[in-house]
Amino acid sequence: MHLQPLADLVSICVQKGISDVILSPGSRCAPISLAFIRHPKIHARTISDERSAAFIALGMAQQQERPVVLVCTSGSAAYNYAPAVAEAFFQQIPLIIITADRPPEWIDQWDGQTIRQSQIYGKHVKASFDFPDDFNHKDKIWHSHRITNEAILLANQFPEGPVHINVPLREPFYPKEGEFYDFEKPVLEVGTVSAQTVLSEETKKKMQVRLANYKKILIVPGQQKPDIGLVKIINYLAENKKAVVVTDTISNLQSEYTINLHDHFIGFEQISDNLKPDLIISFGKSIISKALKLFLRKSKAPHWHIQPGGYFPDTYQHLSKAIHSQPEQFLNSVGEFMNSDPEFVEKWESTNTKVNAHLGPIISNAAY
Amino acid sequence: MHLQPLADLVSICVQKGISDVILSPGSRCAPISLAFIRHPKIHARTISDERSAAFIALGMAQQQERPVVLVCTSGSAAYNYAPAVAEAFFQQIPLIIITADRPPEWIDQWDGQTIRQSQIYGKHVKASFDFPDDFNHKDKIWHSHRITNEAILLANQFPEGPVHINVPLREPFYPKEGEFYDFEKPVLEVGTVSAQTVLSEETKKKMQVRLANYKKILIVPGQQKPDIGLVKIINYLAENKKAVVVTDTISNLQSEYTINLHDHFIGFEQISDNLKPDLIISFGKSIISKALKLFLRKSKAPHWHIQPGGYFPDTYQHLSKAIHSQPEQFLNSVGEFMNSDPEFVEKWESTNTKVNAHLGPIISNAAY
Repeated sequence: MHLQPLADLVSICVQKGISDVILSPGSRCAPISLAFIRHPKIHARTISDERSAAFIALGMAQQQERPVVLVCTSGSAAYNYAPAVAEAFFQQIPLIIITADRPPEWIDQWDGQTIRQSQIYGKHVKASFDFPDDFNHKDKIWHSHRITNEAILLANQFPEGPVHINVPLREPFYPKEGEFYDFEKPVLEVGTVSAQTVLSEETKKKMQVRLANYKKILIVPGQQKPDIGLVKIINYLAENKKAVVVTDTISNLQSEYTINLHDHFIGFEQISDNLKPDLIISFGKSIISKALKLFLRKSKAPHWHIQPGGYFPDTYQHLSKAIHSQPEQFLNSVGEFMNSDPEFVEKWESTNTKVNAHLGPIISNAAY
Repeated sequence: MHLQPLADLVSICVQKGISDVILSPGSRCAPISLAFIRHPKIHARTISDERSAAFIALGMAQQQERPVVLVCTSGSAAYNYAPAVAEAFFQQIPLIIITADRPPEWIDQWDGQTIRQSQIYGKHVKASFDFPDDFNHKDKIWHSHRITNEAILLANQFPEGPVHINVPLREPFYPKEGEFYDFEKPVLEVGTVSAQTVLSEETKKKMQVRLANYKKILIVPGQQKPDIGLVKIINYLAENKKAVVVTDTISNLQSEYTINLHDHFIGFEQISDNLKPDLIISFGKSIISKALKLFLRKSKAPHWHIQPGGYFPDTYQHLSKAIHSQPEQFLNSVGEFMNSDPEFVEKWESTNTKVNAHLGPIISNAAY
């Protein structure tokens, strides 16, 4: 079976926990689509428009918290994925993008539906792989298994994101009569043993001492999925006035203890002067409120950002500490040592309450 | 006026003969859009969806035979242009793609609508420029003029194609009250003096001698715009049986003298054996007929391709001569020296006639 490495590709996907693929059909990608469709453990859906297909895969991967596979044919089909690929990259959502391609000798020979697909997503994928263009040598088959393993491992690794596998294919595109994709063939699947990022006792103590220096601590969670553990520690810190927690809608952490209406008052200078923090602690991705973002930038407070690894952005222009940790773990370890000035906490809470008193009647009477 | 270099950008576009721009509005690109809208000689249209905007610009540029400008805002807006940009690149259609961007210091800081726009179209533009991010030094203003000139010159140069100008912008995005874009300010516009690519008399003689060696000459024009001069020499050569001219629909060269129904018979082996050329002469871009493409590849005949310059593709896998010339000029110079075997010409013509006799009644009775 000349297309067996494509069956292996699907086998590895399944062994690594992938269950969903979105296909945008075409002639060149037919053998890849067939391999996915025929695997009994794959749920394949067909969406012809590649731009939509990629955004739907993005949402599914976000929801399922595991990679979703995209398969399209050669030519500008691949480029129609690009807006969603960039979104997945910055949203840190895992996607396995498989694009069928002409074999290398046909690139730039003016053959139909031939563009320059290698590395087509530039700086908006975690990695881009070129699948072997034939499987005549056993090392090429090993290489195709390597690429598939590496792509899925990378997509799943913090920070998660899209990876691209470009698959050059020569005719014939279909199995011959009597040939079949063998999904039972043993393939080398690289397993994962995960480790946690844990702060040492010594480091924890240091951080606890440092935190005692701050009296106006603002915790500003960014965009993230709902997380019960985080909700618990965040509410504990807010309820006990250890810190003020300002929660954007997309942080999925709002509660009765947190500041949720900041967007309605943080822009007014006479108010915000009293609300300035002397330490900002953030985690998750970016926030949506432009007013809050500008307020935090203007405060010039030192800023600690917590994430297990990867590139640390400086959204508020005063990043002073890149903390390699799980946010929940960090806050549980040091939260007890936060002690904000009660006056500072009170100012935030009373402002929020005042706005709520005004907004409440307006919202309940508004015609939607 | 802090945005004057954007007015200069528009002034240079107008001086270089550009009249049309398609705007996809956004906040970051507002000052660029305004500059185009306010210029009295620019016809600006607004199309919100960037993917559609780019394809519409593509069609307009193809029709007008001069560059059309695209303007979009920062973020994945730019990536939505990508499918049309790739199409423009391979179709050799000039586009000036202007993308507004965050200034460099805000890239990768998790600010909203910020992706990695520099070089975003990879290998599918002729060039990609980064506009200066401020104009505090006079050399930066000169640089912005250079970029605009160079981009338009490149887009117009054979083979024509898309160029990208990425424009980082800081707030404020709007002119202050009383400020205006000055389109009368002198800017350095680089003019163009075009030269023709002309074969020397000596070269022409050599080619004439060589052509006499071939008895089965097939002229296969590829995709191109309608061209009266080409129609004339092509019809002359076909009518006088100097060569067989096989015209795909997209060659825009069909006439009563040319072979137009090849797609209906060229795939049949018993027929095509008698039709094999001993020389293929092509010009224009690729052909659409897969059957003809395979027939030409299988013929293994030497293949001469004519174009003034640039990369020479080898669509039929037997490219033997890259002829730097205007096709019309070349055919007018050497066509008289083509002398195909009358039997060869007759076989093509009689097959075409036979197919026509069968197809005619079918087509006229078909229910559309």
